[in-house]
Amino acid sequence: MKLSELGEFGLIRRIRALAPRRSGRVKTGIGDDAAVLRQTPSELLLATTDMLIEGVHFDPTYTDFYSLGWKSAAVNLSDIAAMGGRPRYCLTSLGISRSCTAEQIMKFYRGCAAALRKYGAVLIGGDTCSSPGGFIVSITLLGETEGKRRLLRSGARPGDHIFVTGALGDAAAGLELLQNGGAARSRAARTLIERHLRPLPRVEWGRAIAKIQGAHAMIDISDGLSSDLAHVCEESGVGALVRSDAIPLSGELRARCSRLKQEPLWYALHGGEDYELLFTASPAKTAALRKLDIPLFEIGSITRGRSCLITDGHGRKKRLQPAGFDHFRKDGSSVRTAERPGSGKR
Amino acid sequence: MKLSELGEFGLIRRIRALAPRRSGRVKTGIGDDAAVLRQTPSELLLATTDMLIEGVHFDPTYTDFYSLGWKSAAVNLSDIAAMGGRPRYCLTSLGISRSCTAEQIMKFYRGCAAALRKYGAVLIGGDTCSSPGGFIVSITLLGETEGKRRLLRSGARPGDHIFVTGALGDAAAGLELLQNGGAARSRAARTLIERHLRPLPRVEWGRAIAKIQGAHAMIDISDGLSSDLAHVCEESGVGALVRSDAIPLSGELRARCSRLKQEPLWYALHGGEDYELLFTASPAKTAALRKLDIPLFEIGSITRGRSCLITDGHGRKKRLQPAGFDHFRKDGSSVRTAERPGSGKR
Repeated sequence: MKLSELGEFGLIRRIRALAPRRSGRVKTGIGDDAAVLRQTPSELLLATTDMLIEGVHFDPTYTDFYSLGWKSAAVNLSDIAAMGGRPRYCLTSLGISRSCTAEQIMKFYRGCAAALRKYGAVLIGGDTCSSPGGFIVSITLLGETEGKRRLLRSGARPGDHIFVTGALGDAAAGLELLQNGGAARSRAARTLIERHLRPLPRVEWGRAIAKIQGAHAMIDISDGLSSDLAHVCEESGVGALVRSDAIPLSGELRARCSRLKQEPLWYALHGGEDYELLFTASPAKTAALRKLDIPLFEIGSITRGRSCLITDGHGRKKRLQPAGFDHFRKDGSSVRTAERPGSGKR
Repeated sequence: MKLSELGEFGLIRRIRALAPRRSGRVKTGIGDDAAVLRQTPSELLLATTDMLIEGVHFDPTYTDFYSLGWKSAAVNLSDIAAMGGRPRYCLTSLGISRSCTAEQIMKFYRGCAAALRKYGAVLIGGDTCSSPGGFIVSITLLGETEGKRRLLRSGARPGDHIFVTGALGDAAAGLELLQNGGAARSRAARTLIERHLRPLPRVEWGRAIAKIQGAHAMIDISDGLSSDLAHVCEESGVGALVRSDAIPLSGELRARCSRLKQEPLWYALHGGEDYELLFTASPAKTAALRKLDIPLFEIGSITRGRSCLITDGHGRKKRLQPAGFDHFRKDGSSVRTAERPGSGKR
């Protein structure tokens, strides 16, 4: 079977069948933002890994090595954040193209180490190899929980409110700016680009949310809201209803889309790489959540069905089709190839 | 500075300067076979990672996906073995070339899972991406120690005997057989090829050796005896004297080299990828080691100097130059390009 037919998530389902979901000290195996292991009777160990490949995840023509190091750490830090954990130990492996200089590699490591330091983690190991193709990064990050509490994708319950922690779509718009080769002339453009190149994982917020007993499920928005909400619904066996007018959009994204006559919602739904957290919580916990001093946007609620729906400004519902990045589908990244409002296809 | 001037180990020295060698719960950071973390007051957590890149570490024209999965796990299992640890949890990331089928990927995972299962570890997570270049594997393996005992590269003491756990050079000869495209007609050739494609990490032996209090330093032979012994000497601040006639050579390697008029010692010294263990121990512990029912070959001793020397059959000493694989040196892999006896250069 071709991988383009199976898709990334079909492949992951097959791999999961080879590994125990739970066994012994493995509390959660393949399929969440991080694996969960019992470390001590009162503490959990979290383990996550992400690979970034030149030409797929980044393009060195507009990504400097420091930013690449930062982002490579940040995407892993964000996975630990999405479990409500504290990042601790990092292993960084590189496949280094022949053209790289020692200075570029050290810039990468300085960016990586800076992101780790900011969030309380340290570099403890890794591997360095030559790569005959492009530059390759593979990072594994270990984290810990305080107590045995962690938030999985699978905990959402019908009636839960759905929250996100910040504006969505900025990183995708920033990527587009970079891909179009436009220098960041305006402050707004620089902000969008920064959101793409140097994402800020929501580590402290994730830990605070996980402490609220009525918070039930959490994920970080890496693939895009439409895809990541679908992951939560699939793992939890529930559906969702999202109010499109409740999705937070930054002033920078609105202004850019208004100028280009584009629909900002497309970026927010399918863009990905914002690394905000999405979580669900019992409505009874809204007051407790509001006290956390975290940006919170309630964008909809979890339903009994199995489908994700979205209402437009006139209250009309339609299916929210996951259109985030899939590594093996022929249409690949939604950012680059999926239909967009304004492109005449919708 | 060019990486080809700095070399792989020069680069690692620079990266080490960015990370704590020891701090808090990090007992050993970058620079050994695995990082060592305090997990509980009485237990250590080990973490190791290795990346394997098509065209550098393997060639799909003669490596089947099952063997690749096995070997990718085995090289990491061997790092845990070299610390005296017990392998436990594995994260496997793949960069998958466009031409791969779902069946090939599942064969990879079955090989990987089989090796993990044999040595008591399980797959708990990973990442799957598309790769525009070749196939890429990155594995992180977590292990544990029983008690706080682990064997580092840095523990060797002058006077220690140097032991290896099995015949060296077979894997390099097996690689050469594969590279020369010769089908494995003879049983001997198949044995050498098997040693290259499906190495057996010495996990149980590593654990048994680590329990002997007079065992001081350990490493797995992945780069080649000359390089890996140099790592031990450098980290321990000592030298070594190796007796060339004490280095164990398999009958298969001897027979092949005799037929081709090659020097088997070259493969044993510089070939790499045998994944036998090299360790040093106080001579007073030789009797205790012999009782372990492990193949043990005493190949020399640790000295006060800083240089690694080797004696030939006539007792003449010469310097044992590390000629194992370096990812960034211009001459690259010793297996493919370094001078060989019989090539007319020596």
